Parts: sequence; structure tokens; C-alpha cells
Amino acid sequence: MSQVKIGLLGLGTVGGGTVNILKRNAEEISRRAGREITVVHAAARDLNKPRICDTSGIKLTTNPLDVVNDPEVQIVVELMGGDGLARELVLSAIAQGKHVVTANKALIAKHGNAIFAAAEAKGVTVAYEAAVAGGIPIIKAVREGLSANRIEWLAGIINGTGNFILTEMRDNGTDFGDVLAEAQRLGYAEADPTFDVEGIDAAHKLTILASIAFGMPLQFDKAYTEGITKITREDVECAEKLGYRIKHLGISRRTDKGVELRVHPTLIPERRLIANVDGVMNAVLVQGDAVGPTLYYGPGAGAEPTASAVIADVIDVVRTMDAPVESRIPHLAFQSSAIRDIDILDMGEVETSYYLRISAADRPGVLAELTQILGDRGISIEAMIQQEPAEGERNANIIMLTHKVQEKRMNDAINAIESLEAITGEVMRIRMESLG
Amino acid sequence: MSQVKIGLLGLGTVGGGTVNILKRNAEEISRRAGREITVVHAAARDLNKPRICDTSGIKLTTNPLDVVNDPEVQIVVELMGGDGLARELVLSAIAQGKHVVTANKALIAKHGNAIFAAAEAKGVTVAYEAAVAGGIPIIKAVREGLSANRIEWLAGIINGTGNFILTEMRDNGTDFGDVLAEAQRLGYAEADPTFDVEGIDAAHKLTILASIAFGMPLQFDKAYTEGITKITREDVECAEKLGYRIKHLGISRRTDKGVELRVHPTLIPERRLIANVDGVMNAVLVQGDAVGPTLYYGPGAGAEPTASAVIADVIDVVRTMDAPVESRIPHLAFQSSAIRDIDILDMGEVETSYYLRISAADRPGVLAELTQILGDRGISIEAMIQQEPAEGERNANIIMLTHKVQEKRMNDAINAIESLEAITGEVMRIRMESLG
Repeated sequence: MSQVKIGLLGLGTVGGGTVNILKRNAEEISRRAGREITVVHAAARDLNKPRICDTSGIKLTTNPLDVVNDPEVQIVVELMGGDGLARELVLSAIAQGKHVVTANKALIAKHGNAIFAAAEAKGVTVAYEAAVAGGIPIIKAVREGLSANRIEWLAGIINGTGNFILTEMRDNGTDFGDVLAEAQRLGYAEADPTFDVEGIDAAHKLTILASIAFGMPLQFDKAYTEGITKITREDVECAEKLGYRIKHLGISRRTDKGVELRVHPTLIPERRLIANVDGVMNAVLVQGDAVGPTLYYGPGAGAEPTASAVIADVIDVVRTMDAPVESRIPHLAFQSSAIRDIDILDMGEVETSYYLRISAADRPGVLAELTQILGDRGISIEAMIQQEPAEGERNANIIMLTHKVQEKRMNDAINAIESLEAITGEVMRIRMESLG
Repeated sequence: MSQVKIGLLGLGTVGGGTVNILKRNAEEISRRAGREITVVHAAARDLNKPRICDTSGIKLTTNPLDVVNDPEVQIVVELMGGDGLARELVLSAIAQGKHVVTANKALIAKHGNAIFAAAEAKGVTVAYEAAVAGGIPIIKAVREGLSANRIEWLAGIINGTGNFILTEMRDNGTDFGDVLAEAQRLGYAEADPTFDVEGIDAAHKLTILASIAFGMPLQFDKAYTEGITKITREDVECAEKLGYRIKHLGISRRTDKGVELRVHPTLIPERRLIANVDGVMNAVLVQGDAVGPTLYYGPGAGAEPTASAVIADVIDVVRTMDAPVESRIPHLAFQSSAIRDIDILDMGEVETSYYLRISAADRPGVLAELTQILGDRGISIEAMIQQEPAEGERNANIIMLTHKVQEKRMNDAINAIESLEAITGEVMRIRMESLG
């Protein structure tokens, strides 16, 4: 049986998981791939650090370039993260005619266009299944499984940390800050949780999904990103009462005016399957014109789930390594000559329904003022709840669900509402999607 | 752009859907595939029948052999169903060195071993994504997406008709017979619903999934099949009260003693995502040792969902048509030389938990007799509900949930229970799975 030799950049969580699976499932994997896949060289920052994997038989170095330059290494597997050094190393591997597998979403979302162009010029493949939704084969599903479809939209829970926090808030009635602290203690959230809770990580992944769905270049800088830090226990409860769940979704939709590309908290009907994806799990719902809705669910992070995707990519790369370039899947699903610039829709132009939570003085006439402002802007109300003021409080919470309206109109309405004398503080606004 | 010419056997629902999508999405598809895919020849039983698709530009015939033998046709797409003539035509296409795409689960489940052997001998591919779970790319996910994993088990709702019936029974509290009649009226169920409601269709699909998961030959004749016809409204309600849903599942699990291969009604905890897959939708849950659980959800039937899978297969076949054979995915996921005979576990040896509904005379001592019988056989009870007899009735329903026990022991216990004087009629037994 022929042997394929791979080099690892990074021996942390995912790198360690990759080594472990390749060892444990060596037989299963070679029965499928028809080749033996062996890690021959690996780079780690600190060789004395304790590892989750057995590195015997693997040449070790602290210099990742040693791995990239090793003539034995046929496929470079980049698992170090970041988009500075990782980018240089990946480009160097490509320049040497080596295939690359990476789990690095920031790298692909921000530098993928240049990386894929370099790879095509050299006739090599850069595979990145593990960059989106960890162990779920979502890149494969969209690029290959749904290739007959005109994709209409997709929506995903693509950050496990954020989903864990929202799930805990709902299950236990806890506040955002308390759950975040618990998530950090459990290792589900980083010490600096910004990437996760502000939606940047999700925006990286959404950027990649949108490109392969619609056949357009990666445009991370145009993604709209809003975090979950302002969501209160109250919002979670009100949503529940109205038959909705709050999820941090990445959404991309094709419209006549351009493609929507947005990450934000979203109310979705509780009967939708994706509304019931809880804890650290991820899921992506894809709407194709032929197939209709399909959903892909699984663990979006962790050593072995991510390594599962990395190794599947290695096997895919190995299969077509010696085949004509035409037999490989194009990097962004569409032939590079068929990739088209499509405008990303400005967030002000996006149309959604809204959940509004307004803290208002508990006196007659306030509701009339609110509905007047909305009515003047053509915003119609689908449902409303007025909550009694809590004991000792003078303000009541008014919850409104609106029909669809352009975001800029809603912004205008919210400005007008916030300037009313009877209104205290900011209006809480959460977008709603039916996903039906 | 190069052109690939395909021939269709069958121009009914799926055939018509295939023609429609290839026409409507011609540009999107060729932007992905890098080739134009054109239907040049199609066979239908009756050329005068009204069609859902425009057949202009397609040569039509009533003789499917004309299509298979047409030297222009490079890929034969078999959408006629049945496993007699279809088998002959597929083997004839293979003998002529043509690739085949089929949506025919009976054909693959029953004759796949011979068909794949013939295809390998000729160096052609037989693709069958559409044969399992319609538009969901589940074959691709298991064969390629999870290729790093030792698959431990999989469980699927893989018959839309059955799932529609069980969903309606639950939502509306209706009886099996009434819902079946409604499903027939809506076109979700055939005039002869045996294949669907008795689990034969699901067993075809499960047979295929089990082979690609575990690397063993197709063994349809060894699948255990039990339908949903005996499930009552009462069972659905009792399950609900206990926190469960009843689903018609296909389950295959690797055990030390062999592989389980079974289709039967199953109680699953309502919090599981798959318990919330309703109506005609399908879903497959796969447990891999590395990735953990992943779930794939979507429409399992219908013209365009099925055609979506057919066309994705055509695109896959086209991509590696001119590449070395090693670059193709092996038919049963594992290299044919690595396929191993694995015993299918006899149903008597399978261990599950059980739901039991027992109609018993409402008098003291009956419960003691029942628990004695179970206790003697080492069967322990997890939960129990005793229902008051309905007005004018003398019998009470006793519902029991048991811990795990071997099926043959449970059969023995049920025989003993049914021979008790206080027991009326048959004991209703439904297997339970935690799927966790």
C-alpha cells in the first residue's frame, strides 16, 4: 500500500487529536483511502510541553519552516491558527508545490482569495473543511452534495461558545455575564471571549460559507457582525413566551440587490429544528432551490471533531493528488473563472422582522406614541406584550414583534422612539427570521 | 466548455425533476462542474403521457435499451425503479463501459454487490446518493465526510411516509388507519403502502448505510424489519407523557458479536434533535468515534429533492471520469479488497430497552405477577404507569419502561405474561433507544 507523508504545523488540541486519530484508526482509514497516511514531521512552539498525543516516530521541531521545507512532506497540515505566520507558511508550502489542509477560518476568510489563486497557479489543493463548523462536513455538503442547486440562503449556529451561553441563559434563567464566567471555567470560552461572543469567529465562517454557496470572492470585511453581549435573561424569556428561541446566527441570503452577509442574535420559531440545537453544538441550515431545506448538525469544535474534518480533507486531497486538476473540487465550489463579484448588501438595506423591547413610563398615551412612530414608517406590528412594572419600578417593558421592514427604516423608528420623553434607555432590537 | 451527455431511464417524477433542474440551473451547474451536462436521450414507458418537464431537444424512446446502447450517452441515469429490468439495464450499461447514476434503493440493496463488482471490473462508477434519504447528501457524508472515523452506529428516519403518519398521529391524536388514508389522499402514501409502513423501503436504505459505515457487503436479506401498523394513538400518547417520541427508525450498530441491522418503531427521548424531525422529512444520525454525533436532515423524497442528489452524483462522476480509478471514492466507502464479511446479529441477540403496554384485569396481585416474571428474567423496570380502566371497561393499561435486556429474554417474558390469566390480548412492545 502506498504511503502518504504529511507534516503538521501545530501540536495543540487539533494537532494532537489528528495524531491520535491517525494512529487509532490507521486501519480503518487505510481501508477507506487505499493509502497509509503517516505524520512524519511536526512543529510545535514548545517541545517540552505535555501533549495529548504520542509523538513517537514523528520528527519534531520548533521551526514550522522545517516542516514546510521537508522534502518528504507531501501535504502540509496547518493547525497553528492566526493569519500572519500561518499565511506565510501556507503560501510557502504552495510555492513548493505542496498541498495544504487547514482548520484556520481567519486565514481563509481574510486571505483565501490570494491563497486559492496561488494554489491554482501551482496546481495544488488547499482544503479547509475543518475551518467551518468543526466536525460537520458542511463544506463538502455545500460544494458537492448540493451542487445541482441554486442556493437561496443559509443560516448557521457556527459558534459553539455563543450557543452554549444562550442555551444556559434559557435553561437556567441566568444572566449573560454569569454564564460567560462559567463557560470560561469549563474551557468553552477563551479568557478573551471577544472573537466568540462578538460574532467575529462566526463571521469568518459565514464568509466562507457564503462564497461557496453563491460563487463569489471571500469578503470578510463586508460582513455585518453583532454580538450577544446585550441579550438579557428577560429577552430570552420574552422570546420563549412568544414561541421563539434566540440564537446567534450567521445568515447569508441572495437577493436581487446583493447578498446579505450578517451575524447577529436572531429570534427563530421554536418549532424549527435549528431552534433546538443546544449547548456547544453547531448546525447549518441551507435552502437550495431544488432540494429545499437541508440541515447539518454536529460538534463545531474540540480536538477530535475538528481533527475528523482535517483527516477527511487529507484523504480527499490524497485521492486526487495524482489526478488531472479538473477532477478536483474547485476551492470556492465554482470554477475560478466562474467566480463573480456580487455586491454585499449594506445592512441598512436588509429586510427582516424585529423583536423590540422598550422600557417606557407606565402611563396612558405612551403606546399611542410608539405605534404612531412605527405606523408613520410603514412598520406593522405582529404581536405585542406589555409587562406590568416590577414592584417599586415606574417603567413597564413593552415587547413588540414587527412584520418585515428595511433595517434603515427601523433604525429611524428606534431613534424616534428613544427620543420620546416617556422612554428610558435604549430600545433593545433583535432581528427575527422565520427560516421557513 | 466540454459537454457531457447523459441518458435517462425513466421520465416520471424524478426523471422529470432531473430534466427541469438541469435546464433551470444549467448555468449554475456548469459554473460548478466546469462542463455542460446535457440529457440527450430518454426512455419512458408511454411517450404520450403528460410530463412535468419540457423534453424538447431530447431523443425519446419507449425502449430503455436504446438509451443504454446509444453511443452518444456517456452516463446512464436509472430512474425507473424495480430490480428486474433495471438491474439488466444497469449491468448492460456497465458492460459497455458506461458510468451509472441511480436512485434505486431496492436495486442497490439487493444487487449492489454484483453491480459494484461488475463496475469495478470495467473501471466505471455506479453512484447512488439519491437511493438513500432523497436530497440529503448522506452517502457523501458517511463515505467521505466521516472517513477518519470508526463509525459506531447510525440511526435514521429514512421513510417519509412513515414519519408523516407518526407525526400526524401525535399532532392530531388520530389513529393509524385514518392517517394512512389521509396520506394516500395527499399522495404521500402509495395505494399499496406495504413497502413504506412495513419498513421494507427503510430496510433497503439502512442496508446501504450500514455497508458504507462498516465496510461490509450489502446484506438486505438479513435486515430485521417491523412496521408501524400496530402502533396505536394510545402508545403515542403514553410515550409523550413519559418524555418520548415514537419514530420508525432504521438502526445499525457495531457490537462485539456482530452488526445490528434493524428497522422498527422506536421510543426516543424528546430532547434529541432527531425526535423533532416531523412530517415527511428524513434525518440520519451518525455516531463516529472521533467526531461524535452528527445529524443530516432534509426531504427524503419528491421530484426535485431526489433529482438534486441524482445531479450531484452526475457531477461527481463527471469530475473523475477521465482520472485514474484510484481517485474515485470506492463504491462501499472502503476499498473493495478491504470489504469484510461481518455477521449480522440475530434479532434475538440485540439488546435494547423496552416500552411495554399490557392490558390487565384491574385487580390486586396482577402487578406482582408481572414484576415477578420480569424479575425472574433479570429485566429491571425503569418507570411504570398504571392507567385506570376506561368507563365500562374491566381492564387497565399498564405501561412499563424497562432497562436494557436481550430481545430473546424479553420475548420469553412476554410469552409468560401473555399466558397469565389476568392478561388480555397481546402485549404491545416497542423498543427504546437513548441515541445519546
